[in-house]
Amino acid sequence: MLSEAQSPKPVRVAIVGASGYSGEELVKLLMLHPLVQLTVLTSRQYDGRSLGEVFPRFAGLPGASNLRFQSPEIQAILDQAEVAFLALPHGVAAEFAEPLVAGGCQVIDLSADFRIHDPEVYQQFYGAAHPAPELLAKAVYGLPEWRREAIASASLIASPGCYPTSILLPSLPLIRDQLIQPSTLVANSLSGVSGAGRKADLPYLFVECNESVRPYGVTMHRHLAEIEQEISLAAGSDTVVQFTPHLIPVNRGILTTMSVAPTQQAAGQDGLKLIERSLREAYQSEPFVRLLGQESLPDTKHVVGTNQIEIAWRLDARSGRLMLMSAEDNLLKGAGGQAVQSLNILRGFPETMGLLF
Amino acid sequence: MLSEAQSPKPVRVAIVGASGYSGEELVKLLMLHPLVQLTVLTSRQYDGRSLGEVFPRFAGLPGASNLRFQSPEIQAILDQAEVAFLALPHGVAAEFAEPLVAGGCQVIDLSADFRIHDPEVYQQFYGAAHPAPELLAKAVYGLPEWRREAIASASLIASPGCYPTSILLPSLPLIRDQLIQPSTLVANSLSGVSGAGRKADLPYLFVECNESVRPYGVTMHRHLAEIEQEISLAAGSDTVVQFTPHLIPVNRGILTTMSVAPTQQAAGQDGLKLIERSLREAYQSEPFVRLLGQESLPDTKHVVGTNQIEIAWRLDARSGRLMLMSAEDNLLKGAGGQAVQSLNILRGFPETMGLLF
Amino acid sequence: MLSEAQSPKPVRVAIVGASGYSGEELVKLLMLHPLVQLTVLTSRQYDGRSLGEVFPRFAGLPGASNLRFQSPEIQAILDQAEVAFLALPHGVAAEFAEPLVAGGCQVIDLSADFRIHDPEVYQQFYGAAHPAPELLAKAVYGLPEWRREAIASASLIASPGCYPTSILLPSLPLIRDQLIQPSTLVANSLSGVSGAGRKADLPYLFVECNESVRPYGVTMHRHLAEIEQEISLAAGSDTVVQFTPHLIPVNRGILTTMSVAPTQQAAGQDGLKLIERSLREAYQSEPFVRLLGQESLPDTKHVVGTNQIEIAWRLDARSGRLMLMSAEDNLLKGAGGQAVQSLNILRGFPETMGLLF
Amino acid sequence: MLSEAQSPKPVRVAIVGASGYSGEELVKLLMLHPLVQLTVLTSRQYDGRSLGEVFPRFAGLPGASNLRFQSPEIQAILDQAEVAFLALPHGVAAEFAEPLVAGGCQVIDLSADFRIHDPEVYQQFYGAAHPAPELLAKAVYGLPEWRREAIASASLIASPGCYPTSILLPSLPLIRDQLIQPSTLVANSLSGVSGAGRKADLPYLFVECNESVRPYGVTMHRHLAEIEQEISLAAGSDTVVQFTPHLIPVNRGILTTMSVAPTQQAAGQDGLKLIERSLREAYQSEPFVRLLGQESLPDTKHVVGTNQIEIAWRLDARSGRLMLMSAEDNLLKGAGGQAVQSLNILRGFPETMGLLF
Repeated sequence: MLSEAQSPKPVRVAIVGASGYSGEELVKLLMLHPLVQLTVLTSRQYDGRSLGEVFPRFAGLPGASNLRFQSPEIQAILDQAEVAFLALPHGVAAEFAEPLVAGGCQVIDLSADFRIHDPEVYQQFYGAAHPAPELLAKAVYGLPEWRREAIASASLIASPGCYPTSILLPSLPLIRDQLIQPSTLVANSLSGVSGAGRKADLPYLFVECNESVRPYGVTMHRHLAEIEQEISLAAGSDTVVQFTPHLIPVNRGILTTMSVAPTQQAAGQDGLKLIERSLREAYQSEPFVRLLGQESLPDTKHVVGTNQIEIAWRLDARSGRLMLMSAEDNLLKGAGGQAVQSLNILRGFPETMGLLF
Repeated sequence: MLSEAQSPKPVRVAIVGASGYSGEELVKLLMLHPLVQLTVLTSRQYDGRSLGEVFPRFAGLPGASNLRFQSPEIQAILDQAEVAFLALPHGVAAEFAEPLVAGGCQVIDLSADFRIHDPEVYQQFYGAAHPAPELLAKAVYGLPEWRREAIASASLIASPGCYPTSILLPSLPLIRDQLIQPSTLVANSLSGVSGAGRKADLPYLFVECNESVRPYGVTMHRHLAEIEQEISLAAGSDTVVQFTPHLIPVNRGILTTMSVAPTQQAAGQDGLKLIERSLREAYQSEPFVRLLGQESLPDTKHVVGTNQIEIAWRLDARSGRLMLMSAEDNLLKGAGGQAVQSLNILRGFPETMGLLF
Repeated sequence: MLSEAQSPKPVRVAIVGASGYSGEELVKLLMLHPLVQLTVLTSRQYDGRSLGEVFPRFAGLPGASNLRFQSPEIQAILDQAEVAFLALPHGVAAEFAEPLVAGGCQVIDLSADFRIHDPEVYQQFYGAAHPAPELLAKAVYGLPEWRREAIASASLIASPGCYPTSILLPSLPLIRDQLIQPSTLVANSLSGVSGAGRKADLPYLFVECNESVRPYGVTMHRHLAEIEQEISLAAGSDTVVQFTPHLIPVNRGILTTMSVAPTQQAAGQDGLKLIERSLREAYQSEPFVRLLGQESLPDTKHVVGTNQIEIAWRLDARSGRLMLMSAEDNLLKGAGGQAVQSLNILRGFPETMGLLF
Repeated sequence: MLSEAQSPKPVRVAIVGASGYSGEELVKLLMLHPLVQLTVLTSRQYDGRSLGEVFPRFAGLPGASNLRFQSPEIQAILDQAEVAFLALPHGVAAEFAEPLVAGGCQVIDLSADFRIHDPEVYQQFYGAAHPAPELLAKAVYGLPEWRREAIASASLIASPGCYPTSILLPSLPLIRDQLIQPSTLVANSLSGVSGAGRKADLPYLFVECNESVRPYGVTMHRHLAEIEQEISLAAGSDTVVQFTPHLIPVNRGILTTMSVAPTQQAAGQDGLKLIERSLREAYQSEPFVRLLGQESLPDTKHVVGTNQIEIAWRLDARSGRLMLMSAEDNLLKGAGGQAVQSLNILRGFPETMGLLF
């Protein structure tokens, strides 16, 4: 609890594009956040409808009765909000980010538009010219555990993708400490269906997903761009990795399993100690990273509904390779939760505020 | 259709240990098989109960009314059956295999007891001395696509495990043709919960599995022993690979994703042609292997309830590695279906008999 | 097995509208049917594509390589098929039924178009004038256990809906034998999501259905029309009942629970004997009806993938009311399986042919 | 927010039997409750283990590091707690309730032990003599919307069962206002598998529940005792109703559908207005009851994870009967959430405290 003296002022917040699964989760997080006043909710689809009509489960939350979806208008957002969360498709997000940042509104973007520093890489992976390259220099890739200071003073935060978060958090400390060879990384991720968004496409029908498991986006999923960017930065040289996402029949959760070769100094059981030390030093005091001991393995059911990520590791004594595993909620630590974590940093709130549940 | 002249005689068959999920599936397959007369069903647990009581869904099948579970007795099996399927835990299966083989009954064992040629490897992975090492020389590792001739004349067939089938079928042709480097293989498999068997353990409760995904058996799952044995045989030298199984909330199905480095001759887009040719030559005329084109990826829902395995491959142009993916029904191609395929070979029946549905 | 002397000739069959879940199931049933030659598969959506492309799991079945979807044309169907199954939306089915029947093709319609004898009732429940009222007199409501003779000589069979089958089979014998008061019937049914068809609508997305249960169509679901028609016929007077369907997160299966007041003669424990006798007399020798004893209750998992319906009953000694419960596979006994059962009757084949699995 | 002047003091709370699904939910609710200090967690099974070991997802919550499971001892509880929640099996709960109440600890019991006023009814439904009949007079059946005053001054609160809550909240106002005939009530309820508790029994295995739907406890489920007790109290005379529970493959949630005959004064469209008025008067200002309009129906996904119950109603113009439907989370409004609601009433806290999420 904060005493009145320290207590920061509540911040007025807009959510642009609040009708998808990520947007819905953000609505809830921000309505329950003690220092947020949610002032604007936009959705073209639900323009004019009350919050309770669209999301009945939020109808009883404090402030719900005043909230109504509106069509997104820049000036209205600038007038009513100090911070805007963008929960929009890539390409569209940039159209809002530009005038909002220009108008002095801090932007936390959940799309991919400002995650990739190099507009050519963006074009390669997203198949279109970058919509606002001049803004890229301002954008911070908002992985809180790795960019806390930059986030604190950012005007535009590109909140990381769900898969990248699950891959980067376990691997970055080991790459930075030169304990693993990043180019040998093979990452397999399993995601719940909410990751595909709330859109009426045949492949995401219940009967098509239930009792089904399938890889997709094989060899060049879009999230690979930011995964490799961040790994390359930590490694100090351009790095290509292998990443294969899969769709599994759960609503929420991502489980990632990685196999990677240790560097020479980190090989063997002695190397394992270095690896453990590296991870513990990186995350020991992080409120949302749970390092599992040798007898425990991650399970999405332990993190779904929380902003936590579980990380486990094992040395495979026979192959000599290191296994890294993680579990997170794709809509929280992999999206809205992490974005609110960035909001807390940005506004000087305690980092866990509104995120312990 | 067989003309009367060619028509082989029906074979009398026993299922020993018919109360688990694999056993249940075998019961169905063998009841519907046109050239099988199911004469003995054993289960200590269900001793004396009728088939229809234990498995209501089979109550209406032809011959069901005469079938009753009995306690397993060697002499009764020898008297009534020419072939016995063992759907028993490892260790227990060997106790039955020995006297049955000695008594002249052909045995198709679904357990791991006779899959591993080297009793020391068995001990390392199964934690106990091999129960019948003298029988190992007789046992054939019954992967039909690779051991058709040996199966045809075997007295003891060790039917492969579910995970190994999903890993070996895609990789063996490429290893034999020296197109991939087997020691670089990283295999991730996702299995439905029926793979854990019908046993009342907390981790397999609905609430513990539903909305959950988790790795298990990390670095040394038992199936690794047979995977490495068969890969080493195809490679011509001892090979260690990396295999990580995961539990996902579906009843049935295994999806395997592998990443492996091509050999020098198979690198690049030209190498991809060699890889495709190798797989097509190996499986083009196989009735239960479906090779998917470049635009399609495996999905367990396309194979569950069938004896088929889907295999897809992609060259990752950026990492230079090859992706191999497969999907199968763990209780059919990964267990009972494959075992019946071996029965067909063993008895000279058409290999697809009773397996097209 | 049929001796050659008795063996009827194979029948050439068309499936019109084979791309939905019911159509897909019909394709499989008819491909595996020993006395059916599937000659025509129509689908506007998949026109020109091979069966294996659209339904990979059928690619290995006998005859699959020759099958290709085509656009539906009456003359092509008349030329190549003696029997046509219509797996089309209501309203559309009638457009095909008319010229096909006129052209001498026997029609088994899985839609609702010819289930309701009274075109005014059709209009009331389906919201449009009946598309072919002049054909209604020819149509037989094809519940095999109740209309075997009429089906055998029909030119147009209206195969019952999934919910009606689950409600009518348990209740009709008791109504006919005047053991229950049909106007007191309260039926609750729970259906898997395949019942909604393969259409890309938001309410049927995985995330919207998984971990969700909901009633729908409350007070006037369309199937009520045929339920009340058949109950009224059995009762000998117009009868209104109460029926509430629910959507539950399974792919397949319908579970129906009914509560109904016994008539005076059937009240109490003595009445229970009459009730049991009535059900046993009606269904004892029916191959697809499984009457459960007093210690067993229906479960969809015992019937999914089969053409069976399970029926159980209990007298509630405290309320005096009778509970009737049933379980069936909505795509088999509730749709395609029942339709093939009618085909067998229509063509003089053994009624279980192609339906035991 | 409460000013310091009004702010009640935090209450020290024990949870006895915290290892099941209800207990786990209670742990979370009470850890996050602003005016609760969780001091004692008991579990024989987990004695000595830390909270984070047993429930990893709570490891990061405030206060978690100090919490450790202990064996249940009356004196330790009395020393450390002013209120004890009992999440124990029926029969066992009474053994703790007696000495705790005697020792001055307020008890909120989630078991059935003190829900039934008449020990003979208890014996009839629970198959054993009531374990502490002398305490029954003190016990309050803790349905907050109906017993707020009695709860406020109770020493022993019997928190209602999950099914009864879903049935009583929609029906009690209408019974009290004599708008429905309670003896005509037919209730069907569908429950998620967590309702069966965390116990390793075959019927609750994933493979046995997934893709399965089944009724159970037909004609005399234990919850019927408290349902009929409360309905009889509201009706002013002994009433028997019909209640059938079903198990469906979701983790959490109960959906109840009821059909009931209106009284003469409430028949027809005019009666419908009386019915609506009765429900609105009863619940308009209730924070946890959401009355749905005529165009909306309950769905468990709208209430799971909340303490809310959704209630809808429809008049069936054809049958003349009234349909009542409700949805709740069986572990929240149906168990732990409702119990915390009672705690808030008991301690004079705002009733929604700790329950808005």
